[in-house]
Parts: sequence; structure tokens; C-alpha cells
Amino acid sequence: MNTPAHTAPPTRGPSDHDVRSQIVAAATEYFARYGYEKTTVSDLAKEIGFSKAYIYKFFESKQAIGEVICTNRLDDMRRAVDAAIADATSASDRFRRMFRAFVDAGTQLFFGDRKLYDIAATAALEPWPSVRAYERYVEELVVRIVREGRESGEFERKTPLDETANAICLVMKPYISPLLLQYNLDGAQDATVHLSNLVLRSLAP
Amino acid sequence: MNTPAHTAPPTRGPSDHDVRSQIVAAATEYFARYGYEKTTVSDLAKEIGFSKAYIYKFFESKQAIGEVICTNRLDDMRRAVDAAIADATSASDRFRRMFRAFVDAGTQLFFGDRKLYDIAATAALEPWPSVRAYERYVEELVVRIVREGRESGEFERKTPLDETANAICLVMKPYISPLLLQYNLDGAQDATVHLSNLVLRSLAP
Repeated sequence: MNTPAHTAPPTRGPSDHDVRSQIVAAATEYFARYGYEKTTVSDLAKEIGFSKAYIYKFFESKQAIGEVICTNRLDDMRRAVDAAIADATSASDRFRRMFRAFVDAGTQLFFGDRKLYDIAATAALEPWPSVRAYERYVEELVVRIVREGRESGEFERKTPLDETANAICLVMKPYISPLLLQYNLDGAQDATVHLSNLVLRSLAP
Repeated sequence: MNTPAHTAPPTRGPSDHDVRSQIVAAATEYFARYGYEKTTVSDLAKEIGFSKAYIYKFFESKQAIGEVICTNRLDDMRRAVDAAIADATSASDRFRRMFRAFVDAGTQLFFGDRKLYDIAATAALEPWPSVRAYERYVEELVVRIVREGRESGEFERKTPLDETANAICLVMKPYISPLLLQYNLDGAQDATVHLSNLVLRSLAP
């Protein structure tokens, strides 16, 4: 995320970091109440009691604020997934836990706050840099688990690693992308169990 | 689809069948131009030169007309898929052809006429009886192909047939449902090749 260059704040005032956090916190609350798409930087400025120009000193656009919120949420999701798979006993177990954790975290973070889903949808549709980074995280995690299973002899090694990992990401995508997950929330738990079984059968040596 | 009971038309006038076809043809064109959601039965009546009451003699609602259009489109898709798989040489070949045919037909029928996508989306979201029937067709086709492959020894037989078929339908769903396909059009061809490979690996004995 790019922020415009800005001069140092007066030493007695709040630090840049504090002001940025304050804007992000207020924006998160405001977006959650009124939706991201409908809110303007002027609305936010009025709500926080700052001038629009002052906000622009810290964020070059509404999207730049949205990007920070989105990055924070996606970081929460990564932490949830990483925690869920940390003490897995095998590559298969790690794969199952990962898939379930993505769906649990996604359901909670995208749809727990229905209005904030708005940001997730916009971010996923464009997609924003934070979303691209998250997609890379998912891909790398899948590659890591497949490689682990190949090394331990749990998974077959004939199919090119890239193809295997890509196909698995495609299977998981409807349950990871908020744009698709909204249509798959019903029965997502059972679906991911059946899909995990299918993927693991496809990985059998 | 339910249509209200109606009296026989005068023998010198057009037959009921002709009037129904005329309304459906005019509605298809009108929806394609202005979108399904925005069109009212009054708009259609004006366009065709019938009274609203006369249209209601044949269709109980706008949805009833939409259902006929939707059924016609889905019948076209079934025919395209059935033709594509008719001379497959094995269950694996039939599966690959089926998946590809669904994506080709769906891309063409849902997105060739972008405005008619509107009907497909509404029909899939509710879903309409024609869509439920189509989903059953997909499920039954998958069951048939899996059973064929199990009988010929191409596919494994340990996993319950229902679970296998359900998981395969879940893998294909993002490329069959128009609501999901809209987000998966880019790279759908490559995606379905990789996914077919994955599914066939999962089916290996």
C-alpha cells in the first residue's frame, strides 16, 4: 500500500502511527455500519472530526484505508490457519485442518460482519494487493503440504507438483474466495469434508 | 411450471400453443435487451401488443415466462452435453468430455447473451424448478459415469458411490452454476483440465 509522503507531526501531538490507527479503527466501525461502497472519505472525516485534507495526509484514498482493514483481516485468517495446522500429525491431517480452518475463518470474518463483507468483495473482485498476497499465501501453503506428503511417502510423486497444487487450490477456491463462499455457505462443512477426502484420494501414491 | 386454467381460444384464432410460443419468443428478445429483473409483464404486453390480462391467461407470472426460457436454455445445454459424451471411449473420457461440455455450453449460453444471464442468475439463486431439475440431471450423469467406470474396472470401488459423486459435483459446481461461473470464466478451460485430472486421479483403483 502506498501512502503519500507527509511531514512529521508536531512532537506534542499524536504520532503518525496513532493517527493512522485511529483513522483505520473509525473507518472499520463506519464501514461495518454503512458499508464500504457507500462511504466517502468526507463521511469518514466528518465522523472522526478530522478534515478531509488531514485524512489524505495519511491515506491517499478510501481504498488505501480499506486495504489496511483488509490486510488486518487477512492476517487474522493466516494466524487462525497457521494455528490450526501447527500440530498436525501428517501431511493428510495438515491438509484437512487447513481446508477446514480456511472455511471456518472465512465464514466468521467475511460473514460475521455482513457489512464488512462489502470490503472483502470489492477487494477480491479487483483484486487488491492484500488479496493477491493472501492468494500467494494459500498457494504456497498448499505446495508446502503436498511437498511434505511427497517426502514422507504419503502422496504420489508422478504428477508435476505445480499441477497438483494448482488443482487443489481450484478445488478450495469456492470456499476461500468471499465472492464464491457467499454461494457455498450452506453445507460448507460437509462439502469440505467430502472434498478433502476426494483430494486425498487423488494424492494417494 | 403451473399455468392458470384457461378457456379454449376461438377456432379461427391462433392456437394456445402458438400464443404461448409467441409470448416466450417476444419475452426472450425483450429480456435479452432490457434484462429480466427490470422488465414487468406490462412492458412485455405493450411490446407484443397484447393486454396484460391476455398474457396472464397463458402465464401466471413473469417468472412463469422466465421458467420456459430457462427450461429451453437448459434443454439446449443437456443436448450439447449429451452429444459431447455420446461416443466417448471410456468412463474417464466421458468424464472429461462432460466437464468440458458443461463449461463450453455454460459460457456460451449464460454469457453469450449477457442480458439473459440475468434470468440464469435469478433462476439459480432462488432456485427455480427448472434449475433443480438441471442439477438432478448433472448429479445423475455423474453417478452414471462413476458407476460405468466402476463396472469397467477403471475406477476404485471402496468409497461410497454417493460420496464420490457428490464430491465430484462439488468440484464441478463453480463451472456449472452461472452464479459461480461468472467469477471463474478466466482460465476456465485450463482449470477444468487440471480438475478433471485431479478427479480422475482420485478415482483410480
